[in-house]
Amino acid sequence: MRTILVTGANGFIGRHVSRAAALQGDLVIGLGLGEWTEETWRRWGLSAWNEFEVTVANLVSHAGTPDVVIHCAGGASVGFSLDSPAQDFSSTVGTTLEVLEYLRTCAPEAALVYPSSGAVYGRAVSLPISEETPLAPISPYGVHKRIAEDLCRSYGQSFGIRVAIVRIFSAYGMELHKQLLWDACRKAMVGDSSFGGTGRETRDWVHVEDVARLLLTAADHADTSGTTVNCATGQDVAVESILAVLFEALGTSLRPQFSGSARLGDPERVAGDPSRARAWGWAPKRPWQDGVREYAGWFRENEPGHSTDHPLASPHGQ
Amino acid sequence: MRTILVTGANGFIGRHVSRAAALQGDLVIGLGLGEWTEETWRRWGLSAWNEFEVTVANLVSHAGTPDVVIHCAGGASVGFSLDSPAQDFSSTVGTTLEVLEYLRTCAPEAALVYPSSGAVYGRAVSLPISEETPLAPISPYGVHKRIAEDLCRSYGQSFGIRVAIVRIFSAYGMELHKQLLWDACRKAMVGDSSFGGTGRETRDWVHVEDVARLLLTAADHADTSGTTVNCATGQDVAVESILAVLFEALGTSLRPQFSGSARLGDPERVAGDPSRARAWGWAPKRPWQDGVREYAGWFRENEPGHSTDHPLASPHGQ
Repeated sequence: MRTILVTGANGFIGRHVSRAAALQGDLVIGLGLGEWTEETWRRWGLSAWNEFEVTVANLVSHAGTPDVVIHCAGGASVGFSLDSPAQDFSSTVGTTLEVLEYLRTCAPEAALVYPSSGAVYGRAVSLPISEETPLAPISPYGVHKRIAEDLCRSYGQSFGIRVAIVRIFSAYGMELHKQLLWDACRKAMVGDSSFGGTGRETRDWVHVEDVARLLLTAADHADTSGTTVNCATGQDVAVESILAVLFEALGTSLRPQFSGSARLGDPERVAGDPSRARAWGWAPKRPWQDGVREYAGWFRENEPGHSTDHPLASPHGQ
Repeated sequence: MRTILVTGANGFIGRHVSRAAALQGDLVIGLGLGEWTEETWRRWGLSAWNEFEVTVANLVSHAGTPDVVIHCAGGASVGFSLDSPAQDFSSTVGTTLEVLEYLRTCAPEAALVYPSSGAVYGRAVSLPISEETPLAPISPYGVHKRIAEDLCRSYGQSFGIRVAIVRIFSAYGMELHKQLLWDACRKAMVGDSSFGGTGRETRDWVHVEDVARLLLTAADHADTSGTTVNCATGQDVAVESILAVLFEALGTSLRPQFSGSARLGDPERVAGDPSRARAWGWAPKRPWQDGVREYAGWFRENEPGHSTDHPLASPHGQ
């Protein structure tokens, strides 16, 4: 049984990777900010939750010497990074430095898995995007993820810390309270079906349970060069396609409408090349249509404000 | 008359750029850590010295809204970065983030000049190294300089801050109390002439007054893309050559001896391509032989412990 420390374990990816680790028999310790009940964190697979900032001192005091650290804490919003770049830097880069210092000084045998982002690539010249593509992040969020990657590799090169970097494309799934699918569900609730963009923009949607499996697999491949893989399906799916499936699953008669004007700074098309991760034996298992239907079901069941008289109350077929 | 804020103004490059700015008629305000007398900082061209950490709050309180910021504060030692990577990160990257936030929130019209380092290139595949060469820094020092560059460009791209990045190769000159020439002078003082390496390693030595001129020139070229130039001569000069001139100028009869074994991680040969800076009208003026003789003279005149009975006491020709 491995001991796995998950920072930011109460976040979207942190929750799912914690549960996946527990299900495969690992002991999972969580550390990070955010209050949640013991009942909840136990349900997500944690054996302990340490509600502390990610600092060397707190890691030394509460994390012991795990076999694997999965550093999920960090900034998670392009918009926030534009409004508050220094805070996003601190969340993403500052915490990564603390984790790396903790590993260097107290747990040099542990493997670090760093969940990075497809945002490090910026606008793609050609698809699918391989890990060799030059990095050109657009937003502070993407720049900070790239900087965190650079720090991980630096600690590998200079101090022998073993690292695996996983560049996650458009992760989605239950517990995601932001981004396109979330916003679309919220809009549908109030009868709004208007969206920016053309609808023909594409993203590589990867289900969070597939993400969680790859993060756990990556721990076995961590090395001092900072081995790096895409977490993607290779498929680029248009926003209009995914929203059509979502709206149908939500049971609304609304149809998504697009403004037609592209949003400045947004890449037009995105698909990641998953070949390297596939060579590790990983493959995405959840078709996006199934995942989107699951998401719609989760939204309908869990959202506060859900009542029988809002526009989502009478899905056909239910 | 421009107002120029120099952070780290009491450091090696900070002093020289402050003096050069004052000599050309700029008003120079210094901010940073380190105690020095008013007589000294006035001699180096400062109109005010604010002995404070480089933070947004201190910059807002003490720096006003300068026309140009030259951010000289930061880590300055590969060895220190290996011993204390988090402190080097904080010195180099942390202070750069503070300066960028200050500019974003309080002085968005100011131009930022960032003195980076040739260390961002790592081992060169071919010489001279142009600014287009892929970056592959070896030490935490070099990684942190590259990260600071990335942050500068990010603030240009996302927030319109105008930046010029100057990648300084082997800067040397009076007031440099470390690195090869300093160590060699100290060794010569105690009759030691042994050096690591083969002596045939080369570096691109650029006199600090040439560096200062390029930093001031760069301010006029700052843009939101973070324009980047090498500060180099294009000439690669062997360690054995520069030490031979130094020892002769020090008046010692010692001759440098080399261990013959290369130091791990050190690039073998280095020369930077100065074409871009030359296109701005800059050219290095000080031949390295003159600069090294000047350095030897400065060392002999200024070092404590200098006495008539140490090995440098009787230079020939004096």
